[in-house]
This record gives sequence, structure tokens and C-alpha cells, in this order.
Amino acid sequence: MLRNKIMAPITKHYDYLVIGGGSGGVASARRAASYGAKTLLIEGKAMGGTCVNVGCVPKKVMWYASDLATRVQQANEYGLFQDLDLSKKNLTFNWPQFKEKRDAYVHRLNGIYERNLTKEGVEYVYGWASFNKDGNVEVSSTDGKDTSVYSADKILIATGGKPIHPENIPGYEFGTDSDGFFRLEKQPKNVVVVGAGYIGVELTGVFHGLGSNAHLVIRGDTVLRKFDESIQHTITDHYVKEGINVHKHSQVQKVERDDKTGKLTVFLDHDGEIIEDVDTLIWTVGRKSLLGLGTENIGLKLNERGQVIVDEYQRTNVPEVYSLGDVVGNVELTPVAIAAGRKLSNRLFGPEQYKDQKMDYTNVPSVVFSHPEAGSIGLSEAAAIAKYGKENIKVYNSSFTAMYYAMLEHKSPTRYKIVCEGPNEKVVGLHIVGDSSAEILQGFGVAVKMGATKQDFDNCVAIHPTSAEEIVTMT
Amino acid sequence: MLRNKIMAPITKHYDYLVIGGGSGGVASARRAASYGAKTLLIEGKAMGGTCVNVGCVPKKVMWYASDLATRVQQANEYGLFQDLDLSKKNLTFNWPQFKEKRDAYVHRLNGIYERNLTKEGVEYVYGWASFNKDGNVEVSSTDGKDTSVYSADKILIATGGKPIHPENIPGYEFGTDSDGFFRLEKQPKNVVVVGAGYIGVELTGVFHGLGSNAHLVIRGDTVLRKFDESIQHTITDHYVKEGINVHKHSQVQKVERDDKTGKLTVFLDHDGEIIEDVDTLIWTVGRKSLLGLGTENIGLKLNERGQVIVDEYQRTNVPEVYSLGDVVGNVELTPVAIAAGRKLSNRLFGPEQYKDQKMDYTNVPSVVFSHPEAGSIGLSEAAAIAKYGKENIKVYNSSFTAMYYAMLEHKSPTRYKIVCEGPNEKVVGLHIVGDSSAEILQGFGVAVKMGATKQDFDNCVAIHPTSAEEIVTMT
Repeated sequence: MLRNKIMAPITKHYDYLVIGGGSGGVASARRAASYGAKTLLIEGKAMGGTCVNVGCVPKKVMWYASDLATRVQQANEYGLFQDLDLSKKNLTFNWPQFKEKRDAYVHRLNGIYERNLTKEGVEYVYGWASFNKDGNVEVSSTDGKDTSVYSADKILIATGGKPIHPENIPGYEFGTDSDGFFRLEKQPKNVVVVGAGYIGVELTGVFHGLGSNAHLVIRGDTVLRKFDESIQHTITDHYVKEGINVHKHSQVQKVERDDKTGKLTVFLDHDGEIIEDVDTLIWTVGRKSLLGLGTENIGLKLNERGQVIVDEYQRTNVPEVYSLGDVVGNVELTPVAIAAGRKLSNRLFGPEQYKDQKMDYTNVPSVVFSHPEAGSIGLSEAAAIAKYGKENIKVYNSSFTAMYYAMLEHKSPTRYKIVCEGPNEKVVGLHIVGDSSAEILQGFGVAVKMGATKQDFDNCVAIHPTSAEEIVTMT
Repeated sequence: MLRNKIMAPITKHYDYLVIGGGSGGVASARRAASYGAKTLLIEGKAMGGTCVNVGCVPKKVMWYASDLATRVQQANEYGLFQDLDLSKKNLTFNWPQFKEKRDAYVHRLNGIYERNLTKEGVEYVYGWASFNKDGNVEVSSTDGKDTSVYSADKILIATGGKPIHPENIPGYEFGTDSDGFFRLEKQPKNVVVVGAGYIGVELTGVFHGLGSNAHLVIRGDTVLRKFDESIQHTITDHYVKEGINVHKHSQVQKVERDDKTGKLTVFLDHDGEIIEDVDTLIWTVGRKSLLGLGTENIGLKLNERGQVIVDEYQRTNVPEVYSLGDVVGNVELTPVAIAAGRKLSNRLFGPEQYKDQKMDYTNVPSVVFSHPEAGSIGLSEAAAIAKYGKENIKVYNSSFTAMYYAMLEHKSPTRYKIVCEGPNEKVVGLHIVGDSSAEILQGFGVAVKMGATKQDFDNCVAIHPTSAEEIVTMT
């Protein structure tokens, strides 16, 4: 218990103290307060955390712009606006104006988060938190003017994560990261993104769609290595076909900056390749936990990656100190943090029925806002074979051109894969690439989570004409 | 049994004779042939029936054009192509060119249908079928040159439907129907669509999106009366807001045509309203069975609406004569006819395991390609209350603006409703309006068909940021 001890000048005591105003922290704080827990939330920057400020939200908004840029170029072929030449050569994007609009939207969301906290009775302060030696939480206000100390019965660490910089690469500091992407005041003409994960794939897609010359540097042969190979290959091949400069089997050796022009030169280890005249370099080589909370003062255990270690009930090794979200790192997704945060507060402060509630981290759907989108739930084909044996796995595949592209010369791929296990063909994996995949996956996610079999998929009559209908008619 | 009798000059005898090369007929014929049944399919016009030729397919293609026309107008606000004025006043649509492209696509599909039949070993002839007094099927070839007579062990009537014309309205013949819509060689400037059903709503939306001045004449207060009131009101209100001239509580009294200009004047019964200067009038007041097959010669029973009466196994009153699809009229959807056709052939010609297989007409999802789209599965709120009692129904509602519109002044609505029954909150109805609704609904359809509860919906982690995630997080 982290009750106030003799020496600490405690400002206030709370039932629940939440460090971090991101998706998980806010959700947990609000849920706790809804049960009457006296709750304080501490945020160092802006409410909403990574998702709202430098993640899902502004990313999706940029994806919409990029997607729309592509659609417009299809209009003439659709017989539309033929008095205007809507080809790529006339593509322009008013990046500064759009950034302002996007920032204003994010700012509105920050305000909504604050109002929702207040509505629910959560108190909040802006400042940087750290544990002191008494186990209480000191908060220095963001303007640096004053420090307060809070104690609480229960504390949640939900401080999220931040991008990793490859500090071993000479000149790495000339590059920025995904946070920096959202700060860019103008559109780079020539941009290099390093990293094959979903963030790199998404940012590269956005740049390309908006007309930048985009390079993507990846270590292996394909992007999205954590996804099923059908997604890896479909997206990689399509990016190459679209004219994105995908540098495979490549790592950055060093980065040089011309002080006069500010332009970068990026040296790769593959065939002596050099990318010159680079306006912007973005590292998307991974994320790590955002701590620096003086957790050593309470003896909090971290794993070798510096992530907070928790059990299935989000309990750390320190009694009454909990943690969840990206700082823990188990499925780093906003809705996962939200669900975990709510369930934790249900369990800690809610009625008897929730006393054993915990987050289930299996069969969580996730998507990539690539061009086209991709989405996945459950096991990849390879993982399913490894787990159940090849003889127990049946895989259904479908590749086709969605009807929208029937009117266009230039097609975008659709590819679906269902991975089934056992004689009942239980669906243990669903992997989709194609337009609207993010929207399509949600309902199938419900079905898979319910334990759907292939027969259950097929029992639902198709909705025609859609792409999704293919998922219930695969043979 | 319809074996050949003494007097008939039988050309050929088949195991299975399918009248009608639409979705249901083709699916059933192919499935039968896959089991080795000697199968003949007879089609009077073009393979693929209503869906491929004058329904789902060309409709969706037109919807894509209309939707894209709207998206392009949002591009400037998205910071894109700002050197070009992409506002409505510059909207043009090359209808004749696009129609040619659309027709070519449909023609390609016709060919694919033919090839698939051949591949599966189904024989087919083009011609008009009718039953003769011997119970055999006479086919006069479409060029009228010759007549053949076929006998078969089993016969399927899958001749589909056709639009109803309101023959009691003076001047009705100056209007056309949805078949005529697909024949239009140029875009009407001023168009009147009559009827509140999904066909009327879809065509009106397409015209409006492509820049025609569109009138929609409906008898009641809302469109889509067979759908949940949330869909009715959301679409009706949005159509009005978008500037579609929705004439409520109105019926057409008469239609006059100016012989010189060819323009129509449409007289309504409401407040003496008159719509002048009309280029095209389209009746979408219902559909009826397409017969004229000499079914009286075999004593086939029809209901009072002229639809073939079948039991749950698609059996008519005549032994070994079956029927399905729109000519029967129970859930008039392409995938329903396909599923019914396949199941029938499974039962008639397939292995023992299928001997009791039949189509399940409950919980069939259906969608409307309005602007925005709408979709529905299960019971409307009103129907659920009528069936289970108000005290046993819990309804979840959500209305919001999808993120795409955060960057736009002009918004399009999203509205979701879940209807639950009993203490376990079994989902008995799901009704959605908003972008991508058709794609979103398919997976949820699987879940509902599996018997999902509200808790099952909520058990799947949300996919962020999407619209569909709202369906698994409603409170």
C-alpha cells in the first residue's frame, strides 16, 4: 500500500492514481471514477496519448488524404470531370494547410478527452510524474513552476511508448521518427522511410499517395513480417508495382547531411546503394516503453526490453501498482489498452460480478492502413501449422480484382486467406488485403472470437456485390 | 415424372433441365452437373439474369461512379488538386462513354458465365421455354427459327422477375423501369423516380450524385419502409438535406408527354404538385414474377401475386418441378438464389449427407446502395417488439460522424442500431447506415447467424480507427 509516509508533503490522497492520459489511462480512470473511486490522472503532454496525438488518429486522417488523392486520379476513367485533367501530373497537396486542419481536429479531441474526464469526475493535472522514495508520486507541472506529491491506494502506470532511434548508425540524428512525421510542416519531395513494420508501411503509403518520391528500406524480402505471408507478399509486391522504391535486404550504414542544402544522403549496406537528395528520413524501426518515472524507487520490475512486467490481471511486482498499454507492450493497440483499462477498473472498483475480470489478449484483430488496407485476426498459416501440425490445417485462399477496378486500367489487389484447424474447420486465422479491409474485419473478428467454423462463415448468405462476400463463399 | 410421352418429338432427355440462366439457375445447374447430372440450361436473353445484366452488377458500377463523383468534390477541402476547382459546378459525367464501358464489363461477365457452365459440363441453349401439354419443355430459339422439345427427370423454374408498371396511371407508358435505366444512352438533366423501395432509392442516389436534378416520389413519409425506422429516417432525411427533391405522401396521378420536346410532365396527387420539364421518368413500384411458360399446361400453382408456390425444399405442387429465386419471391436477392440453387442440387444429385439440405431464409443480410449505404440483418426494432414484447427487447443506438468527415464541412451520417432480445441480449437485429455498410455487415452477419449476443459483439476488441468498431463498443 502506498499510503503517505512521514516525510512526504502530500498534497492529496486518492483511491486511484493514473499516470498517463493515453487511451488506456483515460479509459481506466473514467471507469474507476464511474464507480465512485476518487481518481487523479497525470498527463505530461496532451490528453489522448499516442493514438490521438501522434498515432491512429492523425495517421488515419493522412491516410484518407492519400487514399482520396488516388481516387481522384481514377475519376476521369470513371467518366467524371473529364474537362479537367485529373492525372497524377496535376496532383498537388497543400500539406501546411491540411496539417493545420488536422492539428485543429486533434486539438478538438484533446478537449473532448478533458471534458469526458471531468464529466466522469476524474481530476487531472498536466505534469511529469515520478515515484519518490516513499512510493508516492511527485508531479512537476509542465511549466516547471511547482511540484506536488500525491499518494494513492492504487496506482496505474499507463505511460505508453515512444519510437526507437538507431543510435548505432552514424548520422542517425539527421532522421526523425513517427512523432516527427506529424510535426512536418511541409511535404518532402524525396523521403526515405526505414523499417518494414506497419508504421513504416503506412507512412510510406501516405507519402507515395500524396505524390512524394518514397523510399522504403527493409531488412528482409517483404514488409509486415509479423503478418501472414499472404499479406506480406501482396503489400510488398503492390508497393513495388506502384512505384515505391522498396530497398530489400537493406540496412542503413550511415547518414550524411549537406549543411548548405540540408539534404541528406542515405548509405545502404546492399550493393553500395546510395539514396541522394533526401529531404526527410524517418526511422520506424520499433518502439519502446516510455518510462523515466523513478520506478527504481519502488523496485518495479522491467523485462529485458525495458517493458513493465505484469501478470494477467495487469499487476506489477509492486503491490497495488498496475500497468497496461504500450508501456507493457503486449499487443500495442489503442482498443486493447482501452479494454484492459476498463476491465482493470471493473475488477478493482466495480461490483462483485467483475472481481475476476481480465483482458483476453487472444484473437485480437489488427489492421494496417496501407494502400490497400490489410487486416488480420488469429494465427498466420505458418503459426497455425507450427501449433497444430500441417495435417490438421486447411487453408482457403482467394485473390481477385474488386468490382470497383473493373472500370479502371490500373487495379489494386484483393487477397483473402482463411486458416482452419481440425475436422470441424475451426477458423483460427483470417488474413485479408484489399479496400475496406479494416471495416470488413470487425464483424468477422466477432465471429472468430466466438469460435466460428468455416461452415459458420458459409452459413451466412453473401452480400452482393461486395468484396467481403468472398469470405463467406470460399471453396 | 416428366418422361417423354408418345406424341412429343423429343430432341433430348436430361436429368435436370433448368429454365433461366440467372444467378439461381446457373448455380443450381453447375452444382447438379458437378455431381454428374446431365443438365441443360435454357436462357432467353443473357447469362447472369437480372443481377448481371440489369441489377446488382451494373447498379453497383453506377453507384461507384456516383460515389466517386462525390469524393472528388471533397478533394479540394482535403488539400488536394487545389489548382483545379473540383466543386459541383464543374462536375461532368460522360454517360455514353461510361455506359459502353459498363456494358462491355457486363458482356465479359456473360461470357464468364457461359464458360463456367461449359467447364462444369452444363449444356445450354438460348431460347424461350414453355411447357407443352405433355409436360415437356419446348424451346423456340431466340432467332425464332426453330423449336426443340426437351424432357427431363427434374425441372427447375428459375425465371426471375421483372419490374411492375402502374398500368392504371394515365400516361404510365411514358415512363420506363429499372431495365430501362440501364438502357439510357444519355444522362437525364431532370429525372423523376417513383417508389420508396431500395431500387428507387438507389437510382435516385446515383442520378443525384452524377449531377442530375433528381425527384423521388414516395407514398409515405420515408423511404425503405421494409427496413428499420432508423434506416428509413436517416436515409430520407439525408436525401432531403442533400438536395434531392423528395415528394412525400405523393402518388402520380397522370403523366403527359410533349410530342415536340419529348419532355414529360408528372402530376402528383399531393397539393396539386406538378413536376415539369422531365427528361426521364422511372417506375420502381415493385417487381413481379417472370413467367409465361405455359405453366398452366402442367397445372403449376401460383399464389395471388402470381409467384410460384414452393415448400421449404423448393418443391412446387408438380412432382419433380422445382422453383426458386425471384420467380418465387421469398427474399429476392442474388446470393439467396445462388445458395438455394446449390442446396437444391446438393439434395437432388449430391451425396447422402445432403439429402435433407434446404435453404434457410432467416437472418439473411441485405444492403442498399444508397448514399450513404445501409444494411440490415434480422428483425427491425418494431418487428422484434411485436414478436418478443417490448419488455424483452433492449436496443442500442449510436449516431456519429465518421472520421473521414472530420476534415469536411459537409458531413454524411453514420447510424447504428443493435436490437437484442432476452436476458442474454441475443442480437436479433442489426441495422446500419454509413460509409462501407455493405462491407461491414458481412462479418456481423456471420456472427448474428451464429446466434451472437451483445456480449459476443463486445468481446471482440475494436479495430481503431474504423466506423465498424462502434458496433462492438455500444453502450
